Amino acid sequence: MSACPVTAVATTVEPLPVLGRDVRVPLATGGEVTYAALDYAASAPALQRVWDDVAAYAPYYGSVHRGAGYLSQLSTDLFEGCRATVAAFLGCREDDQVVFTRSTTDSLNLLASVLPAGCRVFVFETEHHAALLPWRGAEVTYLDAPRSPREAVETLERALADREPYGPGLVCVTGASNVTGELWPVRELAAAAHAHGARIVLDAAQLAPHHPVDVAEWDVDWVAFSGHKLYAPFGAGVLAGRADWLRAAEPYLAGGGASRRVARNAEGGVEVEWHDTVARHEAGSPNVIGAYAIAAACKALQEAGFDRLVERERELIARVRAGLADVPGVRVLSLFGEDAPRVGVLSFVVDGWNSSRFAAALSAEYGIGVRDGLFCAHPLVRVLLNGDRDADGECGGPDEGRSVLNAVRVSFGAGTPDEHVERFVGAVRELVSA
Amino acid sequence: MSACPVTAVATTVEPLPVLGRDVRVPLATGGEVTYAALDYAASAPALQRVWDDVAAYAPYYGSVHRGAGYLSQLSTDLFEGCRATVAAFLGCREDDQVVFTRSTTDSLNLLASVLPAGCRVFVFETEHHAALLPWRGAEVTYLDAPRSPREAVETLERALADREPYGPGLVCVTGASNVTGELWPVRELAAAAHAHGARIVLDAAQLAPHHPVDVAEWDVDWVAFSGHKLYAPFGAGVLAGRADWLRAAEPYLAGGGASRRVARNAEGGVEVEWHDTVARHEAGSPNVIGAYAIAAACKALQEAGFDRLVERERELIARVRAGLADVPGVRVLSLFGEDAPRVGVLSFVVDGWNSSRFAAALSAEYGIGVRDGLFCAHPLVRVLLNGDRDADGECGGPDEGRSVLNAVRVSFGAGTPDEHVERFVGAVRELVSA
Repeated sequence: MSACPVTAVATTVEPLPVLGRDVRVPLATGGEVTYAALDYAASAPALQRVWDDVAAYAPYYGSVHRGAGYLSQLSTDLFEGCRATVAAFLGCREDDQVVFTRSTTDSLNLLASVLPAGCRVFVFETEHHAALLPWRGAEVTYLDAPRSPREAVETLERALADREPYGPGLVCVTGASNVTGELWPVRELAAAAHAHGARIVLDAAQLAPHHPVDVAEWDVDWVAFSGHKLYAPFGAGVLAGRADWLRAAEPYLAGGGASRRVARNAEGGVEVEWHDTVARHEAGSPNVIGAYAIAAACKALQEAGFDRLVERERELIARVRAGLADVPGVRVLSLFGEDAPRVGVLSFVVDGWNSSRFAAALSAEYGIGVRDGLFCAHPLVRVLLNGDRDADGECGGPDEGRSVLNAVRVSFGAGTPDEHVERFVGAVRELVSA
Repeated sequence: MSACPVTAVATTVEPLPVLGRDVRVPLATGGEVTYAALDYAASAPALQRVWDDVAAYAPYYGSVHRGAGYLSQLSTDLFEGCRATVAAFLGCREDDQVVFTRSTTDSLNLLASVLPAGCRVFVFETEHHAALLPWRGAEVTYLDAPRSPREAVETLERALADREPYGPGLVCVTGASNVTGELWPVRELAAAAHAHGARIVLDAAQLAPHHPVDVAEWDVDWVAFSGHKLYAPFGAGVLAGRADWLRAAEPYLAGGGASRRVARNAEGGVEVEWHDTVARHEAGSPNVIGAYAIAAACKALQEAGFDRLVERERELIARVRAGLADVPGVRVLSLFGEDAPRVGVLSFVVDGWNSSRFAAALSAEYGIGVRDGLFCAHPLVRVLLNGDRDADGECGGPDEGRSVLNAVRVSFGAGTPDEHVERFVGAVRELVSA
């Protein structure tokens, strides 16, 4: 890969307007600058369109499902309509269910709670913790990190073939890595799973904001994603897919909404008849605004021309990679190599720099917000750091990875102007050569 | 109770501005009218102040906990600061934890997941399903509906005394009924629980929006409430209280944020070290906007003078009760009788009317949004309807209670103008006499 001048030709597609695009932040070096939000892989800013839709709806917000008033009816219709919008966005099959959850983590914990008895779960060690850890009640086969998409498929096939006798199985796989941004061979992994009688859930937390998903075409059984990474940060997420396991299991949460009828019985106990619709796993009043925000984001991406946004993001990530390629001491982390297709997520380390200090310098001196740490994907980052077992850090606290060997991650998306990416590349060059 | 003219003297305190206060809705009888949202007990409109605070923050929204950028730091500080605001609002003890959940239902399911082994749960049949049903892993003693606060305490004391030998115990009780609006003797129930070595969780879903809560003074161990009933409908809720059971239990959800360190082990499995702070039960990216909205609501209620709002609501509910008292065939549902203190929630039936049709008429002819059904509190409503076992309805679907014996509920709060309540009383009178 050859170096690319920082002053590259502008992308031909405009970024989508997002909230905070004009926010100015102070610099430690004096003055202030427009904030460059380059931590989309953690949480993306809200699309202006999402905010505008939420703002337009908010005065009409009313109690859903059970209210007799005009705004209750309107809100109920609107909330239920969000399922169809999301289903269309994901390319779902006609009989798939769209369950509104709070996040990808929540969606996968929900799926873990409905696994049939004896289900074995197959998950690569390269998953982030949200996909690696929820399978607490099941037997789990952890698969070693593959170094190519083909090796991923072969590794999975071998593991599936090894399990005898057959019982229910579930493969959980990311669509795009939250560390390397690399795309995983979802279609091929789904075919492998099904060939061996297992099912597959696609963790689209990092994919859905950056690339169209096609549940039916790819033949995945479920897909999970978060609103806050999809430019809709209002506390909702999605689990969409096959209804049978969901319908057969105990409700995820026990409470109103999931319960159809409740009565005392002769022994003084309580008998519950649960809903067998999507309501079964949505106990409690639904997050209508969160669901509406997600639906608005789905529409906004589609109406803007998602393929054009994908193309634009591809140009930007290529520019970042080219810009970092000839900077001495910068090592970009990759599982699948230079030619792998990827979304706008990239992690790297810099010789002689503690990653936390590097990220802090990008913020203080350039107004650039990235992330440092192990990205709640500890095993993967350790593999990428050449198996360095000293790589360590806490997941989830503000101190993740501080003062230990870790990495810096830059990530962007539909709202990122060219200038942010250019500023980032220029800043890395300056910091390294300073 | 004597009748009160519909054109009562105005309350002396102004309602707080809420979103949707000027929304006009069409009437089946022609024309349109300002919508009267009288289903606060299901979901309340957002306070204008909550909306304004969220709108002011939204451009500064950034990834929390793990981001190095300016907006990430700001958002992290702001999110963590919300805990202190909520703790102050609830009168928590210094070492209580404030966990952000998605709703009351979620909060109580979380608490159910951390019960120590062998814990027995005591719950009145009068609870709504969110508090009645979550205790799936535990032995549960369901207590018959008491007909006075004193009987509630005596019933609980008897049940607690009956359990031998002692083991861990938990009492779950509502602060204010979501059907009758009546206040429960929380302080006395807490004393009874503690005298018998049990703990107590206060379900404040219907109390917190209408009445100050004082965790330390009332000596309750936990309190749960929902943002969407507290004028902050952005998908968040709260469980606040003692840290010990929370810290000792497995994380509620498994995923990033809750996990401190994750590593492969020699056997090919995965070892997890979980956080023992509040992060333990908040896996996944937190709903920052939801938490911020709740904190804004807490501040707004306190700054407006919560006691004055309580007094105003008391005037309004007295007016409703007086207005309905002499309407022939209207029967107000009550457990504790006429003199019981109550919040702005009231359920009733009308002789000769199907409640669903009555609620529909209030909407179509008067622009008033109430709710009909069994209010996800089936056993309680059956008791209130004189043990009529035909009372039935589904909880959670749009058809709850349609075409069967059920009730109408009217509920209001800090944003309700006098006119809505007056319109409601006048409408009931007109519909009954038509």
